[in-house]
Amino acid sequence: MAEKIYSYQHLFNFTNQVFQQIGCPAEQAELAAEVLLSADLRGIDSHGVARLSGYVRLWEAKRVNATPNIRIIHETPSTAVVDGDSGLGLVVAPFAMQVAIEKAKKAGTGWVSVQNSNHFGIAGYHAMMALEYEMIGMAMTNASPLVSPTFSTERLLGTNPICVSIPAGEEPAFVADLATTTAANGKLEILQRKNQEAPLGWIQDKEGNPSTNAHELKTGGALLPLGGDREHGSHKGYALGAVVDIFSAVLSGANYGPWVPPFPAYVPMPTGMPGKGIGHFFGAMRVDAFRPAADFKHHMDNWIRRFRSAKTVAGEEKVLIPGDPEREMEALRMKEGIPLLDAVVTDLSAVGERFGVKL
Amino acid sequence: MAEKIYSYQHLFNFTNQVFQQIGCPAEQAELAAEVLLSADLRGIDSHGVARLSGYVRLWEAKRVNATPNIRIIHETPSTAVVDGDSGLGLVVAPFAMQVAIEKAKKAGTGWVSVQNSNHFGIAGYHAMMALEYEMIGMAMTNASPLVSPTFSTERLLGTNPICVSIPAGEEPAFVADLATTTAANGKLEILQRKNQEAPLGWIQDKEGNPSTNAHELKTGGALLPLGGDREHGSHKGYALGAVVDIFSAVLSGANYGPWVPPFPAYVPMPTGMPGKGIGHFFGAMRVDAFRPAADFKHHMDNWIRRFRSAKTVAGEEKVLIPGDPEREMEALRMKEGIPLLDAVVTDLSAVGERFGVKL
Repeated sequence: MAEKIYSYQHLFNFTNQVFQQIGCPAEQAELAAEVLLSADLRGIDSHGVARLSGYVRLWEAKRVNATPNIRIIHETPSTAVVDGDSGLGLVVAPFAMQVAIEKAKKAGTGWVSVQNSNHFGIAGYHAMMALEYEMIGMAMTNASPLVSPTFSTERLLGTNPICVSIPAGEEPAFVADLATTTAANGKLEILQRKNQEAPLGWIQDKEGNPSTNAHELKTGGALLPLGGDREHGSHKGYALGAVVDIFSAVLSGANYGPWVPPFPAYVPMPTGMPGKGIGHFFGAMRVDAFRPAADFKHHMDNWIRRFRSAKTVAGEEKVLIPGDPEREMEALRMKEGIPLLDAVVTDLSAVGERFGVKL
Repeated sequence: MAEKIYSYQHLFNFTNQVFQQIGCPAEQAELAAEVLLSADLRGIDSHGVARLSGYVRLWEAKRVNATPNIRIIHETPSTAVVDGDSGLGLVVAPFAMQVAIEKAKKAGTGWVSVQNSNHFGIAGYHAMMALEYEMIGMAMTNASPLVSPTFSTERLLGTNPICVSIPAGEEPAFVADLATTTAANGKLEILQRKNQEAPLGWIQDKEGNPSTNAHELKTGGALLPLGGDREHGSHKGYALGAVVDIFSAVLSGANYGPWVPPFPAYVPMPTGMPGKGIGHFFGAMRVDAFRPAADFKHHMDNWIRRFRSAKTVAGEEKVLIPGDPEREMEALRMKEGIPLLDAVVTDLSAVGERFGVKL
């Protein structure tokens, strides 16, 4: 697959301008571009600039409001519900995470559930906002239904990611950012492009049989919850994805389960939707709400060093700390640029031409 | 495997008396018995009365304090750290969960990290305490290291369970209670007793090779994180187990990773322990800190009914809601009694004889 390399700054300027062209206020366009590009920097290409045209199509379909009135509609000392007013999740989510952080400053922790939003990029960006305040950050979101619960043939859950970011002292932060499925949809898309088979345990066909056909979702198949099958704990992945769905949407008043709005604008909206838009859930916990920050960071460094220096299976270089691969990728791509597949370049160029913005 | 059936009340009285005999105050002995037996009722036999003699041996080894001064050592409006004073986790955990609930009454949510505790039975008991207050409950704990991180041959994590309990309206509560491994250690113990092989993806040998030998842990092998191997997402199970460890112990000042004290009293304590005892983490969130409780419960019922009535894979009766099997088991065993394996009966009888308590 041919690809072309662009600098971060170049893609940032392009994305920023496109968001401005669809009517986003300057500050929000900039923030949305930063959040979207953070996925490309961290190597999660499926959630980055490759999705820009998808966001534009949602705006065209009037499912994204470029000038949202994002606001708190309910709160207690440690909680809030935010109405995203159909804004880009890329701007709604940082707003809500900041509310969680402000709550945590006063109450020790802050927990914010969000209704009426859209896809928010990678969970990692939002959870990591907490790090500079010496807080643990959490972010999760529901998403278009692609995943079948254990024993079902229906797609009732999204890949519903969870991110937990934990500050350390001298060591880089611990950042676990994971879809609650065996494999994220982005990994399946890579196999589709390469015409390769998927490992057993990633997907099932429309009847619920294990399948290795990476194109299975186009004919009624589904992604499988983390674990893959019952014998390997898929009921746990299903339960985790369900918790994300409930925290994000049943707590906030967003849509849940099979009623979560699809990302592709051409897919019709579900009927009988029980809530508003997509839901997210954010948390912030001050580490010094539990023990002195210096003690916490000292022991977090100790934790990280012990795990990183653990004996490895023959052939493996080292044991990774969650967040290591993404951090290394970010340093590399910030320096050497972000590769985009030709198909993505063509798609982005078309979006740019339409708005008079050169890629 | 031959077994004998006892009524809940009979086993409760027996356990209560044994705890009193080792010096627990009456109220704490009763609570400890209730928590321990809740595992048997819910079908998690590995964590129930079968472990009573193990707790007694920990007390003999002076690792369990029968008259602990359990207290809050740090707090903010929505957080606390509890020192369990080496008490039975079976009584320390409900104390800490109650602190979380009291915090949530005032601040919307409560989050409590615990140091200096011992094994707390099943996470489900503690998380479910929140339900009667119309709160979401969370409970997690670290545990003796039996699990290798992805790419490692060392055992650095426990099976570190997470429980999330969510109240509904007319439907029974959603209760997800899961070890962050492919299979809990208790399931492996069952295979050992039956001399059966384990499925691939549950365990590895001491060199990190996939193994089906259920006795592998006795010769340096390890349980595998949920996912089983890298290709099936074991790095996600590893990350989840790590989060449980950090929330339970790095936040509280308990031991973490390979330094968590072993449950069997004959296993020597690790050297260079960085904290006190075992750690737990609890959370309580008032549902009306987010939206009116009646609305939440209505939508939770709708969520549960939609998932429970989902189309099934051929041969499966229905899609389960997390907590369904345990609730059904509890109703059955409360009525028909709790079966104990002969080996467990022999072990319990010996404990009873020693303290003059008849099984």
